[in-house]
Amino acid sequence: MRALRKTRPAAGAELAEVPVPTPGPGEVLIGVEAASICGTDLHIYGWNDWAAKRIGPARLPYTFGHELAGRVVAAGPGVRHPEPGEFVAAETHLFCGHCGLCRTGKPHICQNMKILGVDVDGAFADFVLLPAHNAWVVDPRIPPAEASIMEPFGNAVHTAFPSGADPELTTSTVAILGCGPIGLFAVGVARAAGARTVIAVEPNEFRRGLAKEMGADRLVDPAQEDPVAAVLEATEGLGAEVVMEMSGVPTVIDQGTRMLQHGGRLSLLGLPDGPVSLDLTDQVIFKEARVFGVTGRELFRSWQQTTTLLATGMVDVRPVITGRFPLERFEEAFDAAGSGRSGKIVLSIGAG
Amino acid sequence: MRALRKTRPAAGAELAEVPVPTPGPGEVLIGVEAASICGTDLHIYGWNDWAAKRIGPARLPYTFGHELAGRVVAAGPGVRHPEPGEFVAAETHLFCGHCGLCRTGKPHICQNMKILGVDVDGAFADFVLLPAHNAWVVDPRIPPAEASIMEPFGNAVHTAFPSGADPELTTSTVAILGCGPIGLFAVGVARAAGARTVIAVEPNEFRRGLAKEMGADRLVDPAQEDPVAAVLEATEGLGAEVVMEMSGVPTVIDQGTRMLQHGGRLSLLGLPDGPVSLDLTDQVIFKEARVFGVTGRELFRSWQQTTTLLATGMVDVRPVITGRFPLERFEEAFDAAGSGRSGKIVLSIGAG
Amino acid sequence: MRALRKTRPAAGAELAEVPVPTPGPGEVLIGVEAASICGTDLHIYGWNDWAAKRIGPARLPYTFGHELAGRVVAAGPGVRHPEPGEFVAAETHLFCGHCGLCRTGKPHICQNMKILGVDVDGAFADFVLLPAHNAWVVDPRIPPAEASIMEPFGNAVHTAFPSGADPELTTSTVAILGCGPIGLFAVGVARAAGARTVIAVEPNEFRRGLAKEMGADRLVDPAQEDPVAAVLEATEGLGAEVVMEMSGVPTVIDQGTRMLQHGGRLSLLGLPDGPVSLDLTDQVIFKEARVFGVTGRELFRSWQQTTTLLATGMVDVRPVITGRFPLERFEEAFDAAGSGRSGKIVLSIGAG
Amino acid sequence: MRALRKTRPAAGAELAEVPVPTPGPGEVLIGVEAASICGTDLHIYGWNDWAAKRIGPARLPYTFGHELAGRVVAAGPGVRHPEPGEFVAAETHLFCGHCGLCRTGKPHICQNMKILGVDVDGAFADFVLLPAHNAWVVDPRIPPAEASIMEPFGNAVHTAFPSGADPELTTSTVAILGCGPIGLFAVGVARAAGARTVIAVEPNEFRRGLAKEMGADRLVDPAQEDPVAAVLEATEGLGAEVVMEMSGVPTVIDQGTRMLQHGGRLSLLGLPDGPVSLDLTDQVIFKEARVFGVTGRELFRSWQQTTTLLATGMVDVRPVITGRFPLERFEEAFDAAGSGRSGKIVLSIGAG
Repeated sequence: MRALRKTRPAAGAELAEVPVPTPGPGEVLIGVEAASICGTDLHIYGWNDWAAKRIGPARLPYTFGHELAGRVVAAGPGVRHPEPGEFVAAETHLFCGHCGLCRTGKPHICQNMKILGVDVDGAFADFVLLPAHNAWVVDPRIPPAEASIMEPFGNAVHTAFPSGADPELTTSTVAILGCGPIGLFAVGVARAAGARTVIAVEPNEFRRGLAKEMGADRLVDPAQEDPVAAVLEATEGLGAEVVMEMSGVPTVIDQGTRMLQHGGRLSLLGLPDGPVSLDLTDQVIFKEARVFGVTGRELFRSWQQTTTLLATGMVDVRPVITGRFPLERFEEAFDAAGSGRSGKIVLSIGAG
Repeated sequence: MRALRKTRPAAGAELAEVPVPTPGPGEVLIGVEAASICGTDLHIYGWNDWAAKRIGPARLPYTFGHELAGRVVAAGPGVRHPEPGEFVAAETHLFCGHCGLCRTGKPHICQNMKILGVDVDGAFADFVLLPAHNAWVVDPRIPPAEASIMEPFGNAVHTAFPSGADPELTTSTVAILGCGPIGLFAVGVARAAGARTVIAVEPNEFRRGLAKEMGADRLVDPAQEDPVAAVLEATEGLGAEVVMEMSGVPTVIDQGTRMLQHGGRLSLLGLPDGPVSLDLTDQVIFKEARVFGVTGRELFRSWQQTTTLLATGMVDVRPVITGRFPLERFEEAFDAAGSGRSGKIVLSIGAG
Repeated sequence: MRALRKTRPAAGAELAEVPVPTPGPGEVLIGVEAASICGTDLHIYGWNDWAAKRIGPARLPYTFGHELAGRVVAAGPGVRHPEPGEFVAAETHLFCGHCGLCRTGKPHICQNMKILGVDVDGAFADFVLLPAHNAWVVDPRIPPAEASIMEPFGNAVHTAFPSGADPELTTSTVAILGCGPIGLFAVGVARAAGARTVIAVEPNEFRRGLAKEMGADRLVDPAQEDPVAAVLEATEGLGAEVVMEMSGVPTVIDQGTRMLQHGGRLSLLGLPDGPVSLDLTDQVIFKEARVFGVTGRELFRSWQQTTTLLATGMVDVRPVITGRFPLERFEEAFDAAGSGRSGKIVLSIGAG
Repeated sequence: MRALRKTRPAAGAELAEVPVPTPGPGEVLIGVEAASICGTDLHIYGWNDWAAKRIGPARLPYTFGHELAGRVVAAGPGVRHPEPGEFVAAETHLFCGHCGLCRTGKPHICQNMKILGVDVDGAFADFVLLPAHNAWVVDPRIPPAEASIMEPFGNAVHTAFPSGADPELTTSTVAILGCGPIGLFAVGVARAAGARTVIAVEPNEFRRGLAKEMGADRLVDPAQEDPVAAVLEATEGLGAEVVMEMSGVPTVIDQGTRMLQHGGRLSLLGLPDGPVSLDLTDQVIFKEARVFGVTGRELFRSWQQTTTLLATGMVDVRPVITGRFPLERFEEAFDAAGSGRSGKIVLSIGAG
């Protein structure tokens, strides 16, 4: 089968022929139909410092990619669900299933987590192995390309609705910091959930345009105006009830605390590279802010919510999918994904 | 009447004779019986940078002190509760009552908050004025000195049980960082709430001894051992479900995130002086930590909980009250409070 | 001033001239501009068994009506907010302010509750007295007639979003049982909050039509089909995540439990006249249903949510307001309100 | 192996020799060391109407019993945890693992639930099969007899701490209705969690004595005094914040609503045989009561909480275990369990 592989600790990747893997106990083999490119994949493709450290040369060669949708073609011993022929998307966080967190309903923060396409061979290939429990049967109303982005869409859903979220989005002013694909999805989610006002902060003009299409009420270009001032102005000086931080930029996270209303919630999904300096006294403690770390998706609550939002058309993600390429044109696809004039780029692989 | 007043922008205070104030509409006049010394009062007494900036010379002379218990002796127009003769403690956060937060059940994070003894004349006096709504009628099982510490005890209660707290203390490992009086109260609260293990971190040996008396299972001297390592060791490497940060020291707050279990809660009450640098990616986001800013007391849920804990004897605060002085011996009282060999110091003022 | 009064323990009412009342301490006098007719007012007007028992002849004569909007024309001693000239709607539940529930942020379930227009003179008059704290300043985007229905709209909001609500409406299938005005408002609220599917159950064809206008996806006439079967069919046999019971009919409440999904939430607002028989074992316990009693509005969280939903146009209540009459045509107004071919009927009283 | 079997649709059971079963994929074989007798087992042993209907003659002969602890002796294909030799207790609710509720973290309300010892062969035998995922490795501080009662203890824990519980037990007055073993455990749990006052209602004098030993502050014999009046008297007329209903008796459930404070929580675990008539208007709706159906244990949060409470000695269940019998003396054991002068009866089976 074809597989897009990192073969050397350097930028680039190679489309190679490798054997089709065989599902072991509890695994399914999926014929990939669509796989979308995540920011993580850009890091791996470009082999930046993070990739060099997180993955390292010892694992090479290996197949990367993790956001995928495809059809189950074979199942290993002991697998009852899903059945061959079912069309699935992949939960890419490979939880261990037996640590205390997995056992108490929080496998998404498993203490022994591995990641598809990072720690094991991934989805930029004709076939991929997946633990059966990580396969989510896709509602037939969701087409393959959109199914492949359920995983990052689920990140947006989780950031919007973490368990115990308070305040909720409905009737709240919601600021979304950073409009990469997940931020753009979050705009649509906030709109669908009945936010009062959705304020999108993003320096890239093209992406601000997509945020507008996804339903943002107010666009802020941080190069032109202070995002904190913009949010305060839009809220009679009170600040936003909910801030979703999608950029991972330390100064933006700091701004996120400053634009927060007393009693507000700051959900952090973006991953800063280094330490972040915050004014906890005035911006968190006196405000009684709730700062929620968010990672992955709640299993599988976030997937169920994602299914509803996509299958019913409550959120239309098509504006965000700005490019589709066959697997063999992966170089163009990665160029597009890294260009700054894109939303989500999808690789079409199999029948999809 | 007698009143302990700041008369000059410098260390010290002066016991002066001033007129007894008259309660205006909605106010009560309280004959103070006991008033305890808060860390804030030490700052004001010593006139440190915070006091110079927060209070400033323009307000002088004025009467400080805010933790108090006493008897209502007069009520202004329109006051129905409490009635003269009732024994009350004071909620010292003077909320405006009409901002959006006051109106929606969150007056403790009022956007126009003033503080008794900071923004208006306070409690180190024979009499003090208080908005009637800020007076909490004290359960008769609680003696005056203990009633005067209901306010800081309520801080501990609020840090332990903020609305929407998850995880809860019951059956959790709880780490308490900093064992000043509020941290010591928190040890008692965690013990009463059925924490699995209460770990108290405090550099001061005397205060570690008090933490032991209040029920801590494990005492950590951060000069002798790494608090993060100590908590991980006590939890099979998992970390604490709940951390209550009472010190306000930036490095300790950072440690608080590092000793937290995946999915754990960090309640921040201690107020750092400057910015705090945190490793959000690994210690908050990937862990899905919940960081709760905590200020003051929930009105009056925290007071009701405080009443139950003190009146039933579920928490015995007597070990923490390490000194009592009549008002005129205020210098000895402040020396004791600042000595590092004290818990809470109470000034006996009136009949109590 | 003019006032619509119950003068005899019998059906009907009398438009009389009475003195304009004077606001006492903490009260405001409101010049009523619009007052809408509640089901309770129909009971009082018709003097049914409930009215005879709840109000009784001893209170007569008195002025009824409670859903109102108008302008503050005078304020009693000690009132700082609202100020004369401000346009307000009325929270009609007159909480005591000093019981344990009032003091801990739950005045809407005050243990000494009185009701405007039931226990004290009400709003079908040129002027009405109101505790200042019960006045809610109306967003200027909301016109007077709509402001007068903020109170029952707030019931729908509270039924939809009670504190601690789980599951939430967003992405849930929501069944609404009974489409009187509050049920109709609830349809709009569920739609605005991003419900997956809104199913409205109502025997009255006219009101089903209004439910359609408010955004219901599925209308069920219980005379034609079994509501439980209809909900199960619409949910692949699973049942609704959220049921809002607005009818108070015992058999309908029982149906509400039967159409509920495992882990679902049943919010009860409709008031049954007598005991209700439920199959708790199979429909509540084995399902782990959450049954939430709901009364009044959360103060003033429900009002803030109501403001957002109405002022931004997220819910358009105009279809529900099916008739407007000047006060002197009250007989026509009550006939319309009781006709079964109406939504909400509003009395225009003053300048509005 | 020996197995206690129902062989005829009538009272009684038969100790028979049957083959040791072989674990299939995903199953473990457990050498049972202790198995305790549940009320359900009494129904099955006595073959009452419930048993005749729920189980029926077609399933006979089969082995009953479900509360168990023992050692893993063999594992079927694909099982990684637990390993042979580990000592485990059994979660007896056999969830399907793939329905929407299982997939979203609520397997305890699986829509395809089967019960060990009811739907499949059970634990009153030398060996029992269990899905590997249903085995909970027991903390070594918990001895076998106590491990066998972790399952019903987990019911008490779940009733006390259902997800989203509000109010919590800490500082609340808690009434426990019915002091069979689960009610008795609940007394201990409420005491450990820092309840203000624990009121136990139970007609059986022997069990009231056990409730006293478990830490109840107030014992109510409903034959001698009205439980509603008793709870109101103990709470200054306010009622209990939390009621845990363990009896399943309709009139007692009704009392449970009547003794509830405004805003209180009623957790229902006891299973009524028929419909239950409630005064919803006054006792649930106007009070804004939260009625929580509770079934089984949250997987495996309730087990983790149970482990902490038992392993640390926060709850000492030894007073509740009033009898231990070897398997062959099962008739004496069932007589004791049904006698009304017992708490929990444990059958010693293997090495334990």
